[in-house]
Amino acid sequence: MAVQATVPIRDRDDLSLAYTPGVAKVCTAIAENPELVHDYTWKSQVVAVVTDGTAVLGLGDIGPEASLPVMEGKAILFKQFGGVDAVPIALATTDTDEIIETVVRLAPSFGGVNLEDISAPRCFEIERRLQEALDIPVFHDDQHGTAVVTLAALRNAAKLTGRTLGELRGVISGAGAAGVAIAKFLLEAGLGDVAVADRKGIVSRDRTDLTDVKRELASITNKAGLSGSLETALAGADVFIGVSGGTVPEAAVASMAPGAFVFAMANPNPEVHPDIAHKYASVVATGRSDYPNQINNVLAFPGIFAGALQVRASRITEGMKIAAANALADVVGADLAADYVIPSPFDERVAPAVTAAVAAAARAEGVARR
Amino acid sequence: MAVQATVPIRDRDDLSLAYTPGVAKVCTAIAENPELVHDYTWKSQVVAVVTDGTAVLGLGDIGPEASLPVMEGKAILFKQFGGVDAVPIALATTDTDEIIETVVRLAPSFGGVNLEDISAPRCFEIERRLQEALDIPVFHDDQHGTAVVTLAALRNAAKLTGRTLGELRGVISGAGAAGVAIAKFLLEAGLGDVAVADRKGIVSRDRTDLTDVKRELASITNKAGLSGSLETALAGADVFIGVSGGTVPEAAVASMAPGAFVFAMANPNPEVHPDIAHKYASVVATGRSDYPNQINNVLAFPGIFAGALQVRASRITEGMKIAAANALADVVGADLAADYVIPSPFDERVAPAVTAAVAAAARAEGVARR
Repeated sequence: MAVQATVPIRDRDDLSLAYTPGVAKVCTAIAENPELVHDYTWKSQVVAVVTDGTAVLGLGDIGPEASLPVMEGKAILFKQFGGVDAVPIALATTDTDEIIETVVRLAPSFGGVNLEDISAPRCFEIERRLQEALDIPVFHDDQHGTAVVTLAALRNAAKLTGRTLGELRGVISGAGAAGVAIAKFLLEAGLGDVAVADRKGIVSRDRTDLTDVKRELASITNKAGLSGSLETALAGADVFIGVSGGTVPEAAVASMAPGAFVFAMANPNPEVHPDIAHKYASVVATGRSDYPNQINNVLAFPGIFAGALQVRASRITEGMKIAAANALADVVGADLAADYVIPSPFDERVAPAVTAAVAAAARAEGVARR
Repeated sequence: MAVQATVPIRDRDDLSLAYTPGVAKVCTAIAENPELVHDYTWKSQVVAVVTDGTAVLGLGDIGPEASLPVMEGKAILFKQFGGVDAVPIALATTDTDEIIETVVRLAPSFGGVNLEDISAPRCFEIERRLQEALDIPVFHDDQHGTAVVTLAALRNAAKLTGRTLGELRGVISGAGAAGVAIAKFLLEAGLGDVAVADRKGIVSRDRTDLTDVKRELASITNKAGLSGSLETALAGADVFIGVSGGTVPEAAVASMAPGAFVFAMANPNPEVHPDIAHKYASVVATGRSDYPNQINNVLAFPGIFAGALQVRASRITEGMKIAAANALADVVGADLAADYVIPSPFDERVAPAVTAAVAAAARAEGVARR
């Protein structure tokens, strides 16, 4: 990636405007009216893509330098798909307090913060405390981007099969950043019930080995009161959502309710191979680009930030994320089919639709500043 | 300014390469061999332009948001004149320790740090401690950029008038970041003597009101043992360098040695108006673009960073800065004249010459990593 000047500097006059002495007038205007920083600098169009390199893709804790290619790739996707400028910031600290204070200090230069590939459970606290401290959007894409795209696909799968979210019971394999966020978000959107399984089995109130985050999860999920293994949860379930890696035995998939949905999102190896999933499920989605129905965050984050920045939202609310998911689902429209419940990342209608929906929701929720 | 993708993302294959799953291979390679971060990311071509907004142009402490236009302007100049990508980072802290720890945490993402508009004397400690902590160039442009361009102009003025630096006695008005750095750098380059005056007069060993930085300055400058006012120092002096604002009385300019050099660099109002300076001086320079001989940092910093980044220098040494000044002076070549002791910022020979000289000096001094 590269930085680009959006104004030409051809002669001494241009130089005097872009830099001293002309720039002093711009500085003085902002000093007198701080809101003008949004009009006179790139602040309101640029997002910091912040990581500590602890949970990079499937690679784990590989440190800040080795995580930079992901942040740079993300920055390019922000630009290409949302027209949003983004800067990779890989931090040389993994301490929660230090990450928070560092991002707070960086905030004057940015219109938003996209947290990326920070390991759970630290990612939850970091996001929450940054949202409290800052008046710009702070969004952990591994959580919410995935959740938004999953909800969009789920909505369309339900629509296709004539069901409502409320009558569906889901099972999520994986209680990391994505699993926790998807569970909460789907419940908020009206999913009937969901059970989340980590490596030790279903997250349930009778477990004594739970972190704070999983304890909270146990209190809002698993209304059915299941305990035991992932396979136990899958028996009779309507939806499987895999964000864990690993492999689900075919027998467990076969035990799901008729016409189930299987969203096996691990990359590059889905938890259930699509060929097996199709034997039992009515709708199959993966994280891979070489199968239909790819659940890809790039469908969400560029438009979500573009919409939030457009209206200078102070934060990204649940309502804005729901609006993003609905807009994304609606792009599919009348073409809805079992192998087309979610648009392609290259569908040029996606980003404008998400952007507009998020901007409108921000205004409706009173977090827009213009 | 804007961010620009340097690779196209046209289809699913491009997307799989730029982001998951393809990017994982790049991450793994860097995790195994950290030096590859320079080849596989933009780290080695991007500089953080860091400020706390405390000493912005002539405006003073206007805070981080209001300083952003300067940082953005600077970033554009980095790109246009040196081909160097740069990112504005205006920090929400003015605490020395916090600035240092924040920049240390940001360092994995950047190939260099350009400190900007941080007030003295904190700027000296911040630069020194960051240079000790990091293995990438840390350069406070208000100090060293100005010093490099001043030396280049002074060298050519001396050459034009058949004198050596060693036989010249200079007077600097202003003991802030620029004044201190210019004094040290000119002495290092061989200037015979220099006296620095702050608002209370000549910085001399008999003063009891000096900060640590000025006490050190008193110990290496003012070999003549002058004390008293700026006017006292100017009597018989060969060079006046103004980096303070304010106005020098015409009588004081008239008291300088015959054929003196007057570099009145305050912007927009030079300490000595060029019309007055020309009555007494053989060479006149200012900081303004509408007079000949503009002492403009943009002649130095883009090439200095471009050269340092090109060879992945771990720091910017005195030798690299001297090389930059010499290269800059040499661009003038046979066209040397009283109204042409320093090239124009738009002279396309400047950045390549400075870049090459700095890269060669880095290699010669053993701080290049390739």
